[in-house]
Amino acid sequence: MKKLVIAYSGGLDTSYCAVSLSKEFDVHAVSVNTGGFTKSEIDHIERNAYKMGVTTYKNIDAVATFYQKVVKYLIFGNVLKNNTYPLSVSAERIIQAIEIVEYAKSIDAEYIAHGSTGAGNDQVRFDMIFQTLAPEIQIVTPIRDKKLSRQEEIDYLKANGIDMSWEKAKYSVNKGLWGTSVGGSETLTSNKPLPEEAYPSQLKHAEPEKVKLTFMKGELVAINGIENDPEINIEVLNNLAKAYAIGRDIHVGDTIVGIKGRVGFEAAAALITIKAHHLLEKHTLTKWQLQHKEYLASFYGMHLHEGQYLDPVMRNIEAFLVSSQDKVSGDVVVTLKPYHFTLDGITSKHDLMNAKFGSYGEENKGWTPEEAKGFIKIFGNQNKIYQQVNSEP
Amino acid sequence: MKKLVIAYSGGLDTSYCAVSLSKEFDVHAVSVNTGGFTKSEIDHIERNAYKMGVTTYKNIDAVATFYQKVVKYLIFGNVLKNNTYPLSVSAERIIQAIEIVEYAKSIDAEYIAHGSTGAGNDQVRFDMIFQTLAPEIQIVTPIRDKKLSRQEEIDYLKANGIDMSWEKAKYSVNKGLWGTSVGGSETLTSNKPLPEEAYPSQLKHAEPEKVKLTFMKGELVAINGIENDPEINIEVLNNLAKAYAIGRDIHVGDTIVGIKGRVGFEAAAALITIKAHHLLEKHTLTKWQLQHKEYLASFYGMHLHEGQYLDPVMRNIEAFLVSSQDKVSGDVVVTLKPYHFTLDGITSKHDLMNAKFGSYGEENKGWTPEEAKGFIKIFGNQNKIYQQVNSEP
Amino acid sequence: MKKLVIAYSGGLDTSYCAVSLSKEFDVHAVSVNTGGFTKSEIDHIERNAYKMGVTTYKNIDAVATFYQKVVKYLIFGNVLKNNTYPLSVSAERIIQAIEIVEYAKSIDAEYIAHGSTGAGNDQVRFDMIFQTLAPEIQIVTPIRDKKLSRQEEIDYLKANGIDMSWEKAKYSVNKGLWGTSVGGSETLTSNKPLPEEAYPSQLKHAEPEKVKLTFMKGELVAINGIENDPEINIEVLNNLAKAYAIGRDIHVGDTIVGIKGRVGFEAAAALITIKAHHLLEKHTLTKWQLQHKEYLASFYGMHLHEGQYLDPVMRNIEAFLVSSQDKVSGDVVVTLKPYHFTLDGITSKHDLMNAKFGSYGEENKGWTPEEAKGFIKIFGNQNKIYQQVNSEP
Amino acid sequence: MKKLVIAYSGGLDTSYCAVSLSKEFDVHAVSVNTGGFTKSEIDHIERNAYKMGVTTYKNIDAVATFYQKVVKYLIFGNVLKNNTYPLSVSAERIIQAIEIVEYAKSIDAEYIAHGSTGAGNDQVRFDMIFQTLAPEIQIVTPIRDKKLSRQEEIDYLKANGIDMSWEKAKYSVNKGLWGTSVGGSETLTSNKPLPEEAYPSQLKHAEPEKVKLTFMKGELVAINGIENDPEINIEVLNNLAKAYAIGRDIHVGDTIVGIKGRVGFEAAAALITIKAHHLLEKHTLTKWQLQHKEYLASFYGMHLHEGQYLDPVMRNIEAFLVSSQDKVSGDVVVTLKPYHFTLDGITSKHDLMNAKFGSYGEENKGWTPEEAKGFIKIFGNQNKIYQQVNSEP
Repeated sequence: MKKLVIAYSGGLDTSYCAVSLSKEFDVHAVSVNTGGFTKSEIDHIERNAYKMGVTTYKNIDAVATFYQKVVKYLIFGNVLKNNTYPLSVSAERIIQAIEIVEYAKSIDAEYIAHGSTGAGNDQVRFDMIFQTLAPEIQIVTPIRDKKLSRQEEIDYLKANGIDMSWEKAKYSVNKGLWGTSVGGSETLTSNKPLPEEAYPSQLKHAEPEKVKLTFMKGELVAINGIENDPEINIEVLNNLAKAYAIGRDIHVGDTIVGIKGRVGFEAAAALITIKAHHLLEKHTLTKWQLQHKEYLASFYGMHLHEGQYLDPVMRNIEAFLVSSQDKVSGDVVVTLKPYHFTLDGITSKHDLMNAKFGSYGEENKGWTPEEAKGFIKIFGNQNKIYQQVNSEP
Repeated sequence: MKKLVIAYSGGLDTSYCAVSLSKEFDVHAVSVNTGGFTKSEIDHIERNAYKMGVTTYKNIDAVATFYQKVVKYLIFGNVLKNNTYPLSVSAERIIQAIEIVEYAKSIDAEYIAHGSTGAGNDQVRFDMIFQTLAPEIQIVTPIRDKKLSRQEEIDYLKANGIDMSWEKAKYSVNKGLWGTSVGGSETLTSNKPLPEEAYPSQLKHAEPEKVKLTFMKGELVAINGIENDPEINIEVLNNLAKAYAIGRDIHVGDTIVGIKGRVGFEAAAALITIKAHHLLEKHTLTKWQLQHKEYLASFYGMHLHEGQYLDPVMRNIEAFLVSSQDKVSGDVVVTLKPYHFTLDGITSKHDLMNAKFGSYGEENKGWTPEEAKGFIKIFGNQNKIYQQVNSEP
Repeated sequence: MKKLVIAYSGGLDTSYCAVSLSKEFDVHAVSVNTGGFTKSEIDHIERNAYKMGVTTYKNIDAVATFYQKVVKYLIFGNVLKNNTYPLSVSAERIIQAIEIVEYAKSIDAEYIAHGSTGAGNDQVRFDMIFQTLAPEIQIVTPIRDKKLSRQEEIDYLKANGIDMSWEKAKYSVNKGLWGTSVGGSETLTSNKPLPEEAYPSQLKHAEPEKVKLTFMKGELVAINGIENDPEINIEVLNNLAKAYAIGRDIHVGDTIVGIKGRVGFEAAAALITIKAHHLLEKHTLTKWQLQHKEYLASFYGMHLHEGQYLDPVMRNIEAFLVSSQDKVSGDVVVTLKPYHFTLDGITSKHDLMNAKFGSYGEENKGWTPEEAKGFIKIFGNQNKIYQQVNSEP
Repeated sequence: MKKLVIAYSGGLDTSYCAVSLSKEFDVHAVSVNTGGFTKSEIDHIERNAYKMGVTTYKNIDAVATFYQKVVKYLIFGNVLKNNTYPLSVSAERIIQAIEIVEYAKSIDAEYIAHGSTGAGNDQVRFDMIFQTLAPEIQIVTPIRDKKLSRQEEIDYLKANGIDMSWEKAKYSVNKGLWGTSVGGSETLTSNKPLPEEAYPSQLKHAEPEKVKLTFMKGELVAINGIENDPEINIEVLNNLAKAYAIGRDIHVGDTIVGIKGRVGFEAAAALITIKAHHLLEKHTLTKWQLQHKEYLASFYGMHLHEGQYLDPVMRNIEAFLVSSQDKVSGDVVVTLKPYHFTLDGITSKHDLMNAKFGSYGEENKGWTPEEAKGFIKIFGNQNKIYQQVNSEP
């Protein structure tokens, strides 16, 4: 029997795939944890996978990989798609696809199946990464190809002895290290917000709380002085912030297939980390570092979102970003408040705002009035020449 | 006596200038209102100006000009310097400088005086615009040149019969249509936030309130259905939002003279208008319109901040921005909440998120699974070729 | 019978289409002249079209439209794809597609046929523009669908009574206002140049000749003082330059379908006009106008090449470009020489290189040594602060 | 006596400085060879330096440093300022300044003198780099400060016993590895070209000659199969090309002080290397690598030109550029011809133009007609939706 790896989430679609493909293939289920799953959730997925008739099931813990290969650069670049969305799901899918195809190659599978529909972004990310890294492996996509209704899938499973409850949740939720996305009937409109209860975290604390984030070369190395791996620190920060219901928003953007999409999300740690990191950069980087980082990181986010992670230009931008973080070290204090947060300030030995060289709006120490006048005169030269040349009758 | 125009604010520095320059020049005081002054404040400034011995005083109402020449484009471009600051003061100074130099030319003045020090940005903006638009007029800057202490200025005024109270406020505040800046001892550090009371508006309402903003070709033409000039609507929005203490933040950025500066601000209407406008754009503009607007607007903000408003490239960018707003019309509903706001959504007949063409994550209507696969195959071609060419041994 | 419009060139592929489609449709042939055809060539195409059995034939003269809708902006932007190729063919196809679809709509055709294969760029340009401007019209592409060999097509035509000579030229040539492309066996390799004789023009003059190009707001309004429409001037320039065999090169670039393509071209007028125009801009535009034009025009060329002419971002970039040309008026003298040309210089009343304001490398008139020192001191502030902050142990 | 280092070229200006400063300081002369000097020229400079009364003279051979620190990146980035000028002199000055200030620090000099005037770019580059790397060293600039005429300098030298011939050359020439600049009375106008004889090399060969350039990760490692250090290869290439009088042009651009400048140059090796390297990149890099390289390299050139080499953003861009060169290896064949050159083509194992994946304009092997249609349909989705949404009445 031909060997097939299936990206298995435990939901209705991938369960349907697992059962139906098992009739034809030697099916090996795999799920990739990029931060959203607990041990007991994974155990549950595993038990279900075997019920569907798969030969083996494997969960790959890819949290550290996810951080190292993508999240790190999203922080370095302060990437928020359309100035809003930390690319929570877009970024995950890339790493999941890479892990799955590498697993498939390691067990000599000839086929990979995924449960994406033909409507959205995920099919593009999965297909492109599979095809690029393993052109010899064929892709199988029953959900995309057959366009079955939920009821047809449930009936099929029942007919095959799988009689589970497949109740459709009111909101479809995707959890991960870098944020949780929330889709519902409202996000299919342009004008309705998600109700409070649709978001995973609810307000529990009213009293503000200060948190100290420590960055070393752009990476979040400690929370309140306690050092840990950055991906752990991100989880710690998520846990602190969720009691304040911080990090909710709705992203509206362009899908890879050219239509607009709208999705809610909650991404407290992502937003706090990025804003704190960006503040530290404003103190430690030069004007043109900030300017070019913004331009490149905006493209990096767009290209990543579109599944183009394997384009070598992404490695080139990452080289720029790593280089730019050399002095981005120091502490940032953030105050968590109900539904929002504020940045208190930073301390860094690389802080370029240093009174020794003059203070904005205060008496300067670094130059004389005459030097300032000379600067202004020449700094304005071109505009003056332009005006005079072009105002002559 | 040689005719001199002085940019007069009524503060200690410009009062010193008015008195001392009146000994040597025929002094004509002018103040330019870009949105921060009430009628009674202006009357007060006028009375004081005459006390300082000026020949004439004139207040120029430049609110509409300010909107038309700068604010409009900052909205079109969603301009937030370093992703934070709406350039409240930077933008005002440009228009004030232009109005002052035009006034000086209209009364045939040979000199213009301003009260900026040699430490900051304002001197650059004033000098450059004066020199560009009127190279024949000489600039006089006693504060920059003499580097007097506050006490020396007060003593001089007293010796000249001006015995007013010049108490230094704990926080220096600059009010205008597009926001209020706040400087204090904390903003001279990198790590201290401003205390609540430093901000002009304090929380008064706890109950959320919905506000409908109507845009027509990118301009804010109505609030809650009531049409008015955009600059009036901005003021109305400021008044609605200030009861929620919305729009506070601290900007850290690069001054024109190369040092870092830090300043608090409150700019509720600016932030709400920009975020609402940007959301409407996400629904009505194409991917590449959004991408290029971001790049150009970021430069526009930086160049404006640096006083380069008269560089013709600014007119070219404005032409791009105007062109991009053709379909940016519709309603945006915003919910005001204590210290923050959320965007509910938009309605627009130009909304590109239109279920007729397929919905994100839902069954698509616009293309078949085979078409999607063909798209993905070719969309990923280059990465696949790159990988294969470069993985060969 | 259902009405079909066919884009008819007179070559083997479109002749095959005309004959075979005439069995099923009421076929109306159309060709669009964007600069490459003489009256007698068009008459020849017309006669052949009727031989193929079409109901009507129409030639659309789109030279002026081509200039106004595309070429003008390529000049404003100095667009050379990958710094080499003036997008001769890419630009033509867009206008041809638009003219054809408008013609089809005007005669209420339900179908449009074109002869592109499934391998290249043209199918993308035609399909996308047809689908965008007339989603109700169906596209018919026998060549792409049937993948016939040349011999099969010739046999089919012969069997249908068309017995013409379809000898394959050694080099496939596409002539147009903005250049002639040349493909051959060499361009299918990466390492072989085209032989001299493959290019349409051969060296005839050895003596250099000066030509004066006059630009008005960026448009080429006169050649050697003789005013004419810009598209006529481009043709005149082509005729002058071809005696020098100027403008040959090979373009290597990315096709829309993700593979690399290589094509020879001869585009004397395009290259001379762009280089002369660019030189005039270097004298009349400010530094940042030059910088941002370069960035936007590079994208404009890429997006045009990829058939995305109807993306509204193209209109926004055109607005920028038009605005930037306000002062780009003056004369440029070019010397034509065997196989190359040199730019002598420019004269313009908008020339910013004006000795009145100081001459590069000569004694300055505009500022003092002290002012220069003040400028430099402050211009270098940030680097100095960065160095000192970060060199402390 | 206080120790002073003088940047000494042997010309009139620096000779004047050396003599006059020797009265007040312990003068140590230094010249930095970035490629333009022969052994006998350096010996000549040394002899003259001692005649001027300096304590020591040192020539620093910085050719390899120049290549490693700047030229390499100019090649990686295909940097031609305003699409014309390889930044020959701009790039040299940076390295000369760095070498001089490091030398000054190594001998504990308290002063550095240079001979630049107050009119141009060089003063900015020298001052900024000296001030940044050695804020404790004072800068002395007699030529800038005193504004002496040539005759006054000659008279002064004669009065001090230096009676040499200081005849002014008709053209001021600056030789270096990366090109030779040529200034003359013509370059002070906007409309006059330089005469043939002003350029250093004259046409000697008429017969075309093929040269094979071998690149390894973007570096020119061999000429015609003979391996050598890249800076040696550049010199070899210059020697081959100068017999064809290749590489002449005139650069018009913005000086750092805001005026326009015009200068002739001859830079055969620079132009050939960049064009050959760029062609190799077109075959080996992806579309977006080419696009972003262009944007970043254009800024890199501008910032370098303006003396901002020490801005850390330059290191970040260099990291991007290095990363982008990973596969830029292969051979490029160039044909040298009178006054110009053509690129024959490339061979590279990283060539992405590989018939295995389909050939442009030929029958494709990589995808079916249906897949192409699916691609086009979805690739054009957004424009189609935009058109339909916005064409509704």
